[in-house]
Amino acid sequence: MKKMNLFDEGGFSAKAFKKLLVHDSENFRIINFNFEPGQELPVHSHDLDGELSITVLEGEGEFLGENGAVLPARTGDVLVSRIRDPHGVRAASRMRVLVTIAPPL
Amino acid sequence: MKKMNLFDEGGFSAKAFKKLLVHDSENFRIINFNFEPGQELPVHSHDLDGELSITVLEGEGEFLGENGAVLPARTGDVLVSRIRDPHGVRAASRMRVLVTIAPPL
Repeated sequence: MKKMNLFDEGGFSAKAFKKLLVHDSENFRIINFNFEPGQELPVHSHDLDGELSITVLEGEGEFLGENGAVLPARTGDVLVSRIRDPHGVRAASRMRVLVTIAPPL
Repeated sequence: MKKMNLFDEGGFSAKAFKKLLVHDSENFRIINFNFEPGQELPVHSHDLDGELSITVLEGEGEFLGENGAVLPARTGDVLVSRIRDPHGVRAASRMRVLVTIAPPL
């Protein structure tokens, strides 16, 4: 068993969102992204099988999708997307999200 | 893309912990467990390959392991365990956790 606290380990930066690799294995990759207000993980996709989840641990903003699609995002939200479908995140407040990719890219 | 808010959807019960299936696919299974103080997901394991993560969204308690092992658990903690290693959760306060199993059992 391996444990990490995201509120202790995950920092913020005014320059760009911060990315923390929590776990990486043949089963899944787990990454913490922390955003200052206005920062974003731009919409992207990969031509690969598999899915990812984005869990909002703190804060609010938007989930970004294909063709400018936008869904409100707030603490407690879990979004599930195929890796091959466009996805992204934009922060309105300080925002901590946890992304799980399975199988990993 | 599919979205759910765990704070809206996930309830609590004095009788037993509440379990909410968030997502189930060939890639991963995502389950929300909500505990009242004192409730627990007893230590268990499955003789299967794969791993699981337990993310504490709210509250505090303990992660349970083999031979009575105990690790403190609080908001923002992420625990990763092999499915075949004994694992469990006990709540000290009201506690919301998100479990991701990959590949699903």
